[in-house]
Amino acid sequence: MTEFRFELHNTDGEARLGTLHTAHGTVQTPAFMPVGTAATVKAMSPADVRATGAEIILANTYHLMLRPTAERIARLGGLHAFMGWSRPILTDSGGYQVLSLSALRRIDEDGVTFRSHIDGSEHRLTPERAVDIQRLLGSDITMVLDECPAFGVPADEAAASMRRSLRWAERCRKAFEARPGHGLFGIVQGGVYADLRSESAAALCSIGFEGYAIGGLAVGETPAMMLSVAEATAAQLPTDQPRYLMGVGKPDQVVAAVLRGIDMFDCVLPTRSGRTGQAFTRAGTLNMRNARHVDDTQPLDAACRCPACSNFTRAYISHLTRSGEILGAMLLTGHNITFYQDVMAELRAVIASGNARPWADQFFARYGEGSG
Amino acid sequence: MTEFRFELHNTDGEARLGTLHTAHGTVQTPAFMPVGTAATVKAMSPADVRATGAEIILANTYHLMLRPTAERIARLGGLHAFMGWSRPILTDSGGYQVLSLSALRRIDEDGVTFRSHIDGSEHRLTPERAVDIQRLLGSDITMVLDECPAFGVPADEAAASMRRSLRWAERCRKAFEARPGHGLFGIVQGGVYADLRSESAAALCSIGFEGYAIGGLAVGETPAMMLSVAEATAAQLPTDQPRYLMGVGKPDQVVAAVLRGIDMFDCVLPTRSGRTGQAFTRAGTLNMRNARHVDDTQPLDAACRCPACSNFTRAYISHLTRSGEILGAMLLTGHNITFYQDVMAELRAVIASGNARPWADQFFARYGEGSG
Repeated sequence: MTEFRFELHNTDGEARLGTLHTAHGTVQTPAFMPVGTAATVKAMSPADVRATGAEIILANTYHLMLRPTAERIARLGGLHAFMGWSRPILTDSGGYQVLSLSALRRIDEDGVTFRSHIDGSEHRLTPERAVDIQRLLGSDITMVLDECPAFGVPADEAAASMRRSLRWAERCRKAFEARPGHGLFGIVQGGVYADLRSESAAALCSIGFEGYAIGGLAVGETPAMMLSVAEATAAQLPTDQPRYLMGVGKPDQVVAAVLRGIDMFDCVLPTRSGRTGQAFTRAGTLNMRNARHVDDTQPLDAACRCPACSNFTRAYISHLTRSGEILGAMLLTGHNITFYQDVMAELRAVIASGNARPWADQFFARYGEGSG
Repeated sequence: MTEFRFELHNTDGEARLGTLHTAHGTVQTPAFMPVGTAATVKAMSPADVRATGAEIILANTYHLMLRPTAERIARLGGLHAFMGWSRPILTDSGGYQVLSLSALRRIDEDGVTFRSHIDGSEHRLTPERAVDIQRLLGSDITMVLDECPAFGVPADEAAASMRRSLRWAERCRKAFEARPGHGLFGIVQGGVYADLRSESAAALCSIGFEGYAIGGLAVGETPAMMLSVAEATAAQLPTDQPRYLMGVGKPDQVVAAVLRGIDMFDCVLPTRSGRTGQAFTRAGTLNMRNARHVDDTQPLDAACRCPACSNFTRAYISHLTRSGEILGAMLLTGHNITFYQDVMAELRAVIASGNARPWADQFFARYGEGSG
């Protein structure tokens, strides 16, 4: 039986090189998790996702509890079997999506009641139910139910919300059934207020989790503020456990956050951008709808190993994008996820060799640092 | 240099086993050509298409002349290089699509003027221009520009239209530049009128083409009438050249037409159905939106070798379809094209062994014969 644990191999400044051990295998960190909202990383097969180098994906409790339901997935053998992904899966708690449905939800001390965006049916999510759904899904990493307040709420509101999230985190910890190789992560909240973030981090550490996420960022604050809060928060988390910056982000933001001690990331950017015609490359981003690509016989990125770059020109991908063809979404999504995985692999290599800072400086020269 | 030629290996009743030799390789017949309208078989990579067993695809002149334009594709090295498909390509002449734009086109003796469905710009297609576009694309098989009248037009209208198509066919023959491995196909018209079909077939044979298509069917007549016209027409075409039934069809219609002497087919059905949640299987068709699949752990078709059937359950594919996920379209399209290719491979095997009729009878028992 695999124990759920984090091995820290090496540090370079604040940047960390590690391995996460889970019931479904290991994850080298820093790691970027492609988002597989509805039990599919959009426009890619699980084999395509694996070929990018991704070792772990994220799936969304909110979407899956509504369709096909957690109970159905459990009957069908769990999320790994259902979607054909045999490696680690992290699931969020559903809180972020539910609380984004501002017109459709009602929050109270016990939990949150909301209406489905699919059929308007009423549902209830409590800390206990969020943990149970993730158990039914079979997630390797379960996230606590938390409240993520909007950017710009005053300190007293942010404090009240963060303290309720702490009470929910305690209930999640109690509800979480220990299983070998499975872990529960707490989520630090507190908005952009340093004292609230410290209070949240300390309280979560005293409850004790298998990892710690930094939530409530990338919701409207500047990238510089996001990085500053992430850095200060990371410094207050245990060194021997993984740190996950939720919902971040652009390539330069991910690199900057790794330099500040973050181990895990997720973001819809590479997948969503792939469906809207944006390509991330070593020379910066390309908008494939732009007319300048229509006669360009270069690949998206000559240094990239993905199927799009091995087989097709910018001219063809531009044609597919402009024509709204599914193959365009398939190729660009695969390319973007490969790009993110290659950035993570390069980061791991330069952390191992103690060259993270100069490598990152070169990266920022192309991508900006902490861009908006 | 490959000569464009058709080798007839064997017959079984009217069914024929052959090989078509083209500049981009050989095609075993009977063959089903997946439709790659805009230089992509929707929701599949060229490698995915090849893995189904497909040896030739069809692309549409109308779509490509508008976007990205034939001239641009020629500058980029031709359609094979542009889309990354190195095997044979047949292109239609654009006539069928243009003439479907009933409100947007004006036909005269010289050709047809029409407005683009993309941006409303005015374009002109003549027999010479249709051949030139297909030369720019680099098609292995060029189709003559023809007029495909709507089903139900009176005999005098059908006759006038068919005779104009013959004059256009002659102009195409003159305009077609002989190149090794490239062929020009004539298209028999004449609606459902036997005498007109005979006149068209005889006139085309006297002009002389590298193959003969039967056009103007699958436009509203009953399947029985379609098969009857196809059979009678096929009987009037040279035995040593390929016969192509355009736009057909459902699996049983393809099988029935092979028994009547047809060698080549194209149809959007397997690809379009894949995007709307329909799966063709050895046991009949499945609508993956149907609630009865949501807990079904079987593959779509246990005897199928495609990625969908090797890796996923009906329950998962049903979830993808109901959720509008691109992976659902990818898996079902790949499955449906594989199904069609497997039907063709089985047909070739049973023609070789002289068992086409009993095999087809078993097939019709599951699929109906000449279904509507």
